Amino acid sequence: MAFQDPQYREAVIDLLAAIAYGEISAFERLAEDAKLAPTLEDKVAIASMASAEFGHVARLRERLAELGADPFEAMAPFRAPIDKFHEHTAPADWFEGLIKAYVGDGMANDFYREIAAYLDADTRDLIVASLEDSGHSAFVVDRVRAAIAADPRLGGRLALWGRRLMGEALTQAQRVAADRDALTALLAGGIDRPGLDLAALGRMFARITERHAERMAELGLDS
Amino acid sequence: MAFQDPQYREAVIDLLAAIAYGEISAFERLAEDAKLAPTLEDKVAIASMASAEFGHVARLRERLAELGADPFEAMAPFRAPIDKFHEHTAPADWFEGLIKAYVGDGMANDFYREIAAYLDADTRDLIVASLEDSGHSAFVVDRVRAAIAADPRLGGRLALWGRRLMGEALTQAQRVAADRDALTALLAGGIDRPGLDLAALGRMFARITERHAERMAELGLDS
Repeated sequence: MAFQDPQYREAVIDLLAAIAYGEISAFERLAEDAKLAPTLEDKVAIASMASAEFGHVARLRERLAELGADPFEAMAPFRAPIDKFHEHTAPADWFEGLIKAYVGDGMANDFYREIAAYLDADTRDLIVASLEDSGHSAFVVDRVRAAIAADPRLGGRLALWGRRLMGEALTQAQRVAADRDALTALLAGGIDRPGLDLAALGRMFARITERHAERMAELGLDS
Repeated sequence: MAFQDPQYREAVIDLLAAIAYGEISAFERLAEDAKLAPTLEDKVAIASMASAEFGHVARLRERLAELGADPFEAMAPFRAPIDKFHEHTAPADWFEGLIKAYVGDGMANDFYREIAAYLDADTRDLIVASLEDSGHSAFVVDRVRAAIAADPRLGGRLALWGRRLMGEALTQAQRVAADRDALTALLAGGIDRPGLDLAALGRMFARITERHAERMAELGLDS
């Protein structure tokens, strides 16, 4: 059993706590962004994304408790990096908010899904379920594409914004990696579990970057 | 069929739209109040209430569409009175926010449930399901009682606050009643449907006021 390794258990607690706080935080930011919505229909679409993110928190909290952790204590180390990410990427308008919801969320999901592939089946299933697409991608793509068609200069600004989101996410991810030894060690593998060597880690980041570029392209933006 | 009466149909559309916008609006305010939470655990409790409110909106929208209405157009007449209610009752601190969530929500639910009793079974079931308690009452009662025990002067201020919430709710409800003829006529009954005479209407408001007083008492507050 992977959980007999205390370092593995610690790393899984870290990971689930980071995802849970990420979703609480996403809820707050999306609820805030909903204020920028030009119509009630747009507001409801963003609020739906916020509620969908929040809907996963309860199961993550239960699992953290099953693993013997206090869910809120476990989340504490991730508040500063995640809050910092949001502080540094406060959307200046409705479209920056939409792109952040779509691209930022997509990046985080890709990252967690990549890590989940190296974990026990129960943890992997829980993570994948927690990252389920809220089904609002089509809405964001539609709104952003229409806005760029109406004002092509917007595309340049929003492309820069997408790059900034990626840069900030990497900065904060590095901060977490430097602080949380067990979480970092997780990727290196352990008894009974295969890990990632540096080349594999490189390929993983390449895949995440590539998917980011795909999402930007769907929005009609250069990455 | 009650829906063959166009005035009945119009009134039901009004009612469902008012409830839907009320829940969208409650979501926004609760998400805003979550910022005042003293701990992450408290924040998550309020965010859960916000998500629970929002969770009912989708079914109400579907039903409005089935009745041939554009859901967002149907909600439009209720934005001003509901937004005004919230503007006039912006909580000054965490405890005012908690009481508003509990007492304000309770009042609105009692009112809609009373009206639902006079409607066709499908509409009644939908309304009752939309008002399902989000199960966080115990959390609010616990937090408010503990705070008053620690600072008895808080009780006086929060009792005044509860009265203000009731007064503002009545003011805005009257505004809606004056504007929406079909909705008001609904309570008077129609072909095949019993209505309320003035005495029955008086008893209905007495019941709502009484339940408000009960909730205030649970919180340890005079009403």
